[in-house]
Amino acid sequence: MKRNLTDIISQMTLEEKASLCSGLNMWQTKPIERLGIPSIVMTDGPHGLRKQANPGDMSSKTVPATCFPSGAGLASSWDRELIREVGAAIGEECQQEDVQIILGPAVNIKRSPLCGRNFEYFSEDPYLSSEMGASHVKGVQSQGVGTSVKHFAANNQETLRNSINAVVDERTLNEIYLRSFEGPVIEGDAWTVMCAYNQVNGDYCSENDYLLNQVLKQRWGHGGLVMTDWGAINERVKGLKAGLELEMPYVGPEHDRMIVKAVQSGELDEAVLDEAVRRLLTVIFKGYDGKKEAFAYDAEAHHQLARRAAADCMVLLKNEGGLLPLKPEQSVAVIGAFAKHPRYQGGGSSHITPTRMDAPFDAIAGMSADCAFALGYLLKGGEADDSLIEEAVKLAQSKDVAVIFAGLPDSFESEGVDRTRLDMPSSHIRLIEAVAAAQPNTVVVLSNGSPVTMPWLPQVQAVLEGYLGGQATGSAAADVLYGKVNPSGKLAETFPVRLEQTPAFLNFPGGKSEVTYGEGLFVGYRYYEAKKEEPLFPFGYGLSYTTFAYEDIRADRTSMKDTDTVNVSVTIRNTGAVAGKEIVQLYVKPLESHVVRPVKELKGFAKVHLQPGEAKTVHFALDQRAFAYFNTDIHDWFAESGAYDIVAGPSLADTPLSVTLSLESTGIPFRKVGRNTKFYELMAIPETAAFAEEAMEGSLERLKQMGAMFAESMGDDGIAELFEAVVKWRKYDALRSLSGMMGGGTSEADLSKIIDDLNTKLKLNS
Amino acid sequence: MKRNLTDIISQMTLEEKASLCSGLNMWQTKPIERLGIPSIVMTDGPHGLRKQANPGDMSSKTVPATCFPSGAGLASSWDRELIREVGAAIGEECQQEDVQIILGPAVNIKRSPLCGRNFEYFSEDPYLSSEMGASHVKGVQSQGVGTSVKHFAANNQETLRNSINAVVDERTLNEIYLRSFEGPVIEGDAWTVMCAYNQVNGDYCSENDYLLNQVLKQRWGHGGLVMTDWGAINERVKGLKAGLELEMPYVGPEHDRMIVKAVQSGELDEAVLDEAVRRLLTVIFKGYDGKKEAFAYDAEAHHQLARRAAADCMVLLKNEGGLLPLKPEQSVAVIGAFAKHPRYQGGGSSHITPTRMDAPFDAIAGMSADCAFALGYLLKGGEADDSLIEEAVKLAQSKDVAVIFAGLPDSFESEGVDRTRLDMPSSHIRLIEAVAAAQPNTVVVLSNGSPVTMPWLPQVQAVLEGYLGGQATGSAAADVLYGKVNPSGKLAETFPVRLEQTPAFLNFPGGKSEVTYGEGLFVGYRYYEAKKEEPLFPFGYGLSYTTFAYEDIRADRTSMKDTDTVNVSVTIRNTGAVAGKEIVQLYVKPLESHVVRPVKELKGFAKVHLQPGEAKTVHFALDQRAFAYFNTDIHDWFAESGAYDIVAGPSLADTPLSVTLSLESTGIPFRKVGRNTKFYELMAIPETAAFAEEAMEGSLERLKQMGAMFAESMGDDGIAELFEAVVKWRKYDALRSLSGMMGGGTSEADLSKIIDDLNTKLKLNS
Repeated sequence: MKRNLTDIISQMTLEEKASLCSGLNMWQTKPIERLGIPSIVMTDGPHGLRKQANPGDMSSKTVPATCFPSGAGLASSWDRELIREVGAAIGEECQQEDVQIILGPAVNIKRSPLCGRNFEYFSEDPYLSSEMGASHVKGVQSQGVGTSVKHFAANNQETLRNSINAVVDERTLNEIYLRSFEGPVIEGDAWTVMCAYNQVNGDYCSENDYLLNQVLKQRWGHGGLVMTDWGAINERVKGLKAGLELEMPYVGPEHDRMIVKAVQSGELDEAVLDEAVRRLLTVIFKGYDGKKEAFAYDAEAHHQLARRAAADCMVLLKNEGGLLPLKPEQSVAVIGAFAKHPRYQGGGSSHITPTRMDAPFDAIAGMSADCAFALGYLLKGGEADDSLIEEAVKLAQSKDVAVIFAGLPDSFESEGVDRTRLDMPSSHIRLIEAVAAAQPNTVVVLSNGSPVTMPWLPQVQAVLEGYLGGQATGSAAADVLYGKVNPSGKLAETFPVRLEQTPAFLNFPGGKSEVTYGEGLFVGYRYYEAKKEEPLFPFGYGLSYTTFAYEDIRADRTSMKDTDTVNVSVTIRNTGAVAGKEIVQLYVKPLESHVVRPVKELKGFAKVHLQPGEAKTVHFALDQRAFAYFNTDIHDWFAESGAYDIVAGPSLADTPLSVTLSLESTGIPFRKVGRNTKFYELMAIPETAAFAEEAMEGSLERLKQMGAMFAESMGDDGIAELFEAVVKWRKYDALRSLSGMMGGGTSEADLSKIIDDLNTKLKLNS
Repeated sequence: MKRNLTDIISQMTLEEKASLCSGLNMWQTKPIERLGIPSIVMTDGPHGLRKQANPGDMSSKTVPATCFPSGAGLASSWDRELIREVGAAIGEECQQEDVQIILGPAVNIKRSPLCGRNFEYFSEDPYLSSEMGASHVKGVQSQGVGTSVKHFAANNQETLRNSINAVVDERTLNEIYLRSFEGPVIEGDAWTVMCAYNQVNGDYCSENDYLLNQVLKQRWGHGGLVMTDWGAINERVKGLKAGLELEMPYVGPEHDRMIVKAVQSGELDEAVLDEAVRRLLTVIFKGYDGKKEAFAYDAEAHHQLARRAAADCMVLLKNEGGLLPLKPEQSVAVIGAFAKHPRYQGGGSSHITPTRMDAPFDAIAGMSADCAFALGYLLKGGEADDSLIEEAVKLAQSKDVAVIFAGLPDSFESEGVDRTRLDMPSSHIRLIEAVAAAQPNTVVVLSNGSPVTMPWLPQVQAVLEGYLGGQATGSAAADVLYGKVNPSGKLAETFPVRLEQTPAFLNFPGGKSEVTYGEGLFVGYRYYEAKKEEPLFPFGYGLSYTTFAYEDIRADRTSMKDTDTVNVSVTIRNTGAVAGKEIVQLYVKPLESHVVRPVKELKGFAKVHLQPGEAKTVHFALDQRAFAYFNTDIHDWFAESGAYDIVAGPSLADTPLSVTLSLESTGIPFRKVGRNTKFYELMAIPETAAFAEEAMEGSLERLKQMGAMFAESMGDDGIAELFEAVVKWRKYDALRSLSGMMGGGTSEADLSKIIDDLNTKLKLNS
């Protein structure tokens, strides 16, 4: 329904406008009945609905909902379509439960594997995370239900999240942490964005003008609203000015009154409030108009989707001697408490009451002619129990195969708490070691929201990483173990060998007031690759029951301007005996740069289903952004002229296909020519290249004379290398050097004129 | 002679004042004869004099001077008195050559072992570097000659040093990079400071108000002058305002005229110029008054000092089976071009024409009954020569012992050029490997200005690190090899296993315009220790021909206020058979902190000479600074209340003695109480502790109720850990949380009053 919001706003009193800027209670917005403004309901997500039966009553029970795999698992599918389907199913459940906005997806970057909420997040890579987030948003919103992309931004730890100040340089913030939000916000057109609790560079996210106004609204053009994470408000009026519309939950009338007072005193321009109300009404009416009365979802179909999703998320990390898939005729020892009580979701606001639960043991029992169970360890507490281990070993010895379900118990990861170590509980470790010593055919199925160390890896034959697989994790695991589903997940994050090796180790979780993102751009695989650190498993890694050959890569051009697009195609073939899906990964590798850059970065991926022997060609279109870094002088993305390798393969560590592209930049990577502009910068721009070359060459003569004079005085030995370097690096000197000791004798007045002329030439005089 | 500078300045014309702000030529200041203002001469250092015979003629020859070991070597002595002696000798040479200021010491921190000028610098540790620098300054200045501490600041690479912008956070800048200058400036009272070429946080060092005015002059109270590194000027007037007095060298009248114009136009307050002139005159007259006419130094005595210094700087890195010291009766194969043409100093402005040269082979020939020489490799070029290696192997096989002189050739390290790898040339590596394979008694003597990798280390029996040992390096090496001097040097820097392991690897040398100090405080051993990275040799490491026992550590108190001093004594004993010197190292290790801190930091050291069996007790006094970090809110050092271990031992990696101290802070680590002040901060201050405890406790009740309500709705599993964490971390929340969802229902108005009251209580209302 089309409404005249301007008209509605004009009818609102100042008090009514202000009142709309905070919720009605824990989960709803305030209705204004006299103007026909409805109340809408928001509830927790993101991988399923956590809705209290009565949104106005904080103690009412959570209604059942389908629990899908959490973000860490979903991202391992690298499957945009699958995540869209999951999103759409969640949207349907929202419709049945009369929820207008579900709080998610959560697209924060996995800065450290210790972050307690990583199980909800997608990836350490912003492109992958952004793509997954966009698909989730599109799925949910296809059902007329809104999303809230969270937690904006740089909320990468749980420790002291209410107050910690994340200190992140502008380039890293944009290339890594904000980049992850671009897909869900711009491509996904998420109705709302949820700001985080923490501070970024000294301002709370709820009042961070850079994040909310400058980036989200101005640069990205977000048309929806920003709400606080629950309780994340600081100064109400400052927040409103910075671009925060909605404070959640409602805690009393004081903040609304402060807004009224600020307008009355002239501290706050009423136009700012009007714009906030316009955004609020836009989203509220969108939610209201999207309602499907008396809608009911198909719980069985959603459970089957949860099962398919969970299976497609699992990552086969090891499969020695082709132990997997298991054969129905093999007898199986099913070991570990998780086999009967799976760990399938994380703790905190995302905790769902599932519609049903598939236990792994039951699912295996449905596929195996002969299987038995041993507990192995207790669900609670991490210490090993010798008698349980002994019993498990005995059972393992009596069967053809042992399948151990292990990982991290609930108490090891949750919203609100960061992990302090990467190890699994010793009860799980010792169980695996003991069983593997007794049974040469041992499979470990892991349930965990983030990486664990695996000191026992060499002793077991197969490892299946199941992440937190949702309510159908048990049947999905059996599907993969028995080859009903060929595993096709790949790691969306690096698995480290040891904690000290992780990129943020020196600064995680930081001090009690501040955390410095000292590793900068080198998050996740960007760190391991640059530092030549060997991880346990690299980013993008995952096995299949079949094999794939990377046969060909082609680009439709060998050179391009940064205003063009290059189309790259990659051909792969299923060279094994069974059908399977492969995730083709495309990385861009700058061969030279004037700024520090990661070795290579993910810029494309596709998931392809292939029958045995079948080949397919997948296509990627790369534009300027695939080659660009975030330039902090122009505060925009900039792709340098130069050569780039475009490489493709099955994982970060294995990129057999490569093609080289020569890029020509048409932009100017600085706002203004000044004394400190470098020759090389001017040489890269056609309009100024000739001048810069000439000026540099001219000044070199004087430098060489000086070098000769020093050599005369000191002997060549003492000065040769120094002057060789001075000459070699001359193009990186600043214009101001034309006037000094090292220059060509240019006067300060002439230098000023040169700078003016250059600005005129480049039209930078405004 | 006492002069009335105010009077002199009042007689100067504006033009005369401005003229004094730049040099007369390459090496001198301008005289103003009508007012009796003399000209003084400055020349390069720092480990000896590089003076052109005629300072006014850039092509005139360098006069001979004693070449002492360069900074990297000198620091390995850890011997304040020795460095003072060297400084005094250099001061004497300045007197003979009519030089009033020698440009040095160079106290930049070794951020990366790749920095091409590391051979001139002392250490990766700011305390050690500061102590060495202070001793050098005191030594030189004891002779009435001035120093110029350089290069101020954050000039930690040669690549693009003319223009690069070093981006360093305030805490790191103060704790690491500026800390190194404190000793020479404050304790040493250096006459002058030389600003670096590069930018720090966006401003050239020559016009960096923070560095020159705020830190150097205001905080440290430096009373001398700041000069540019040669050609480091940018905008002349801006520089003057920022605290730069002297531009060197003279390149023309333009800058003087700009100063005049700026005063005339009112852009520059003449008082600023007057203050600069007052500082210039102070130093010029000090230099003039310090002159000793017709002074002549004792070149032989200085050479002997250079020999003693070089021997005391050498670090014995390995001595398997006690191969060293050599016995005169052993026959020796002396191998390597460096044995006849030692590499004894680095390239660039510090390159000296030595008064004489001791070649290692000659010195060994003087001690060994039977020795012969093989070239092994060519001085120039790095590729191995098979026939030279073969000849060396043959010689080695024919003798009892092989002593190989190897390391880095001139072209591998120089001012102006950073290294790109840590390896020695392959000609040296292959020579060592071949000789070691043929001769089980192989000693390697290294000549290099900074660490090299040693893939051949397991194959040789002994390694003596000689750094760049100056003109007497040859005789000094023989002294140590034959036990005339018991080696007592220890590493002033970590030797890495591989380049990728080094702290700054990801950001060295950075981009073409900017380098980010992303490793922050974790420079040198601070990185290796925190990251649990095993280096090749740790900081502070070095062997002796005797052994030492660390017997006892005592502190004269177990607790103290930050206004007190603790006296710590450490007793060590020579438990071996020969006399020797031991460097006792004292580190402070905070056991808890609210900020990120290194594991431990060097806070004291002493070099002790001990006869066999003798024990001595050395004393250290530690005040607040030994425990403090640099707090960026109060912009000052702050020592937190808490427990600290004070540990002592022979190296960073071996600190057998430990005592614990409890420190009580009397300061306030923030400027003002605000909404964002945390409970824990107030709890640490006696005046506000009770309030903070109470406020926090009160708000906890509400939090627990909220937790219970969530648990009721979601089931304990979903929320237990989250609320446990909320309660546990409550003390790190900000005051503003008293008023929000998580708080105790405090109104905004009451919160403002609470904050006002707290400021009043702490007298922070001004």
